[in-house]
Amino acid sequence: MTPLKNDRLIRALLRQEVDRTPIWIMRQAGRYLPEYRALRQKAGTFMELVQNPTLACEVTLQPLARYDLDAAILFSDILTIPHAMGLGLEFVAGEGPIFTKPIRHEQDVQNLPIPDPSEELNYVLDAIGLIQNELKGRVPLIGFGGSPWTLACYMVEGSGSKDFSKIRAMRYARPALLEALLDKLIEATVAYLNAQIAAGVNAVMIFDTWGGILSPNDYLHFSLKPMQKIIAQLNLNQNDRRIPCTIFTKNGGQHLSAMASSGADALGIDWMTSLAEAKHKVGDKVALQGNLDPAVLYGNPGTIVQAAQEMLDVYAGAPGHVFNLGHGIYPDVDPEHVAVLVETVHSYVGTRPII
Amino acid sequence: MTPLKNDRLIRALLRQEVDRTPIWIMRQAGRYLPEYRALRQKAGTFMELVQNPTLACEVTLQPLARYDLDAAILFSDILTIPHAMGLGLEFVAGEGPIFTKPIRHEQDVQNLPIPDPSEELNYVLDAIGLIQNELKGRVPLIGFGGSPWTLACYMVEGSGSKDFSKIRAMRYARPALLEALLDKLIEATVAYLNAQIAAGVNAVMIFDTWGGILSPNDYLHFSLKPMQKIIAQLNLNQNDRRIPCTIFTKNGGQHLSAMASSGADALGIDWMTSLAEAKHKVGDKVALQGNLDPAVLYGNPGTIVQAAQEMLDVYAGAPGHVFNLGHGIYPDVDPEHVAVLVETVHSYVGTRPII
Repeated sequence: MTPLKNDRLIRALLRQEVDRTPIWIMRQAGRYLPEYRALRQKAGTFMELVQNPTLACEVTLQPLARYDLDAAILFSDILTIPHAMGLGLEFVAGEGPIFTKPIRHEQDVQNLPIPDPSEELNYVLDAIGLIQNELKGRVPLIGFGGSPWTLACYMVEGSGSKDFSKIRAMRYARPALLEALLDKLIEATVAYLNAQIAAGVNAVMIFDTWGGILSPNDYLHFSLKPMQKIIAQLNLNQNDRRIPCTIFTKNGGQHLSAMASSGADALGIDWMTSLAEAKHKVGDKVALQGNLDPAVLYGNPGTIVQAAQEMLDVYAGAPGHVFNLGHGIYPDVDPEHVAVLVETVHSYVGTRPII
Repeated sequence: MTPLKNDRLIRALLRQEVDRTPIWIMRQAGRYLPEYRALRQKAGTFMELVQNPTLACEVTLQPLARYDLDAAILFSDILTIPHAMGLGLEFVAGEGPIFTKPIRHEQDVQNLPIPDPSEELNYVLDAIGLIQNELKGRVPLIGFGGSPWTLACYMVEGSGSKDFSKIRAMRYARPALLEALLDKLIEATVAYLNAQIAAGVNAVMIFDTWGGILSPNDYLHFSLKPMQKIIAQLNLNQNDRRIPCTIFTKNGGQHLSAMASSGADALGIDWMTSLAEAKHKVGDKVALQGNLDPAVLYGNPGTIVQAAQEMLDVYAGAPGHVFNLGHGIYPDVDPEHVAVLVETVHSYVGTRPII
């Protein structure tokens, strides 16, 4: 393992002192960058891009060429696992992901294979190798997967959904079948994230996009518990270092106390939650990652600087905060505005003493 | 005003003693009922149905013929105001509301008229008169409108949206223009709800479907404050009685304390919030209305009974709870399951003593 030249992200996720608050941006390798759009057009479909390690590596590194970010995140998608399970994933422009063979019957759950990462998902592991060869320890590389509940949502609905009423009907009409599906996804995700760790990622993150649509008790049972089971089986403690694990539940602001006891090192929080209140709720149990309203980047530079500084004031340099947006960056944001944000976060120490 | 034979809803919303917990169901007059679908097919477009007082009255009363509900709610839509403002409202099957003339320019905001309820919205007032003639005090009739922020969301986006990035861009790039739009919607909504009160509704509700997409500070400023301004100008105190006002912010679980100080008599809460925690947060300031996961109705009768009883146990007959779903009932729910739910709520007193 190449030692990290910039380990701010890792230190902040583990609540250790840092010289300045690290920043990375969810979906930093993506559509708001003209160089991404150019490459995307050449590459064919979205999944062809994801499955091409050379191009996935190039896309992963694009934002680092522009901005002084403190982390790279693997260019991939949370739906690689159901794709590898054979559900027939397609991305339809303007509509998001579609599964041509969604889960419809009990048999569909029973027949689901657990993908072997070194076979069906080897393109991800290859991309990690290429990226780390290019990064040479410049910044950490974050690997990721989707939460079992979130993957199940797409797999049962067959696509995104307004109400996710198919899987929510399944939860009440066929709870044991839902549990069986989640168990398979737990097993597949443990193997997948451990393979990413073995391939060299420096941190992992679990994206729980749809846990927030559940009632509080159901969130604990069907979304958080599967994530806990995964965390308990990840090889986060390497000989020489910890691979920090972050979990992010969109609309999970009411569950932060429970999430802080999940075994995760850090929690991602969305912009609908107050960072100050979140900090108070989780105490010194976990670090927090977030949570600027992504729409702030539609404002002028003065608006962006002010909003970022107000957020930085919550920790004021104390350990345990990774700056990020509260959700993925929007595709129509001006890339110059991202530069303003990164610069604001990095210059914070200069203008406001941390000690 | 005909005296109410069943005033449980009004009493519960005002935190007075009731003999049993009242229940009504958001979207109780709607697509899950075969008699609604039959009438809907005859009526033409959705807006033609809404604008026909005779048919709107018939639809409003349909669920009361089936179930022993403790309230009727006017069959209408929150978008009647922007429709009356001339934005060209259409409902496209499977896509929801579309405005053919959305807000795109500063001029569009400046030119927006404030509808006179007795002119452009007289069909609503006529429907209220017809419904009250039919109800003859059997149960209270609830009138309603949308929150200014929620109406603005649709008016600026031109439709529903995944991210509402147009109006959220407006919030950061043109905040004064957004305020001007909200001010017009406050004025229009005050006139509209006061006209509904004058026409005879027994309670009013403000639906804030999209306040929950805002950051906490923005929620207070752009969503809650406009609702507070409306409440302060409503004629809720009639000579002989109070017209209770309920506000409902979907995904507003983190804002309940602030909402409890808004001047509203009651808060609607969605199913993502714990009723017990909500009760604790709001203390004796307001009543709570909610909040069964609408997906529970996909379960079998045993599941429904158990979930409803667990919810009833939170108040256990103490004043201040109106039973409802945490969101509108889903169109594909079995109407027989609604009967099970209503019966469970009404028989609760018999099986579990309230004193």
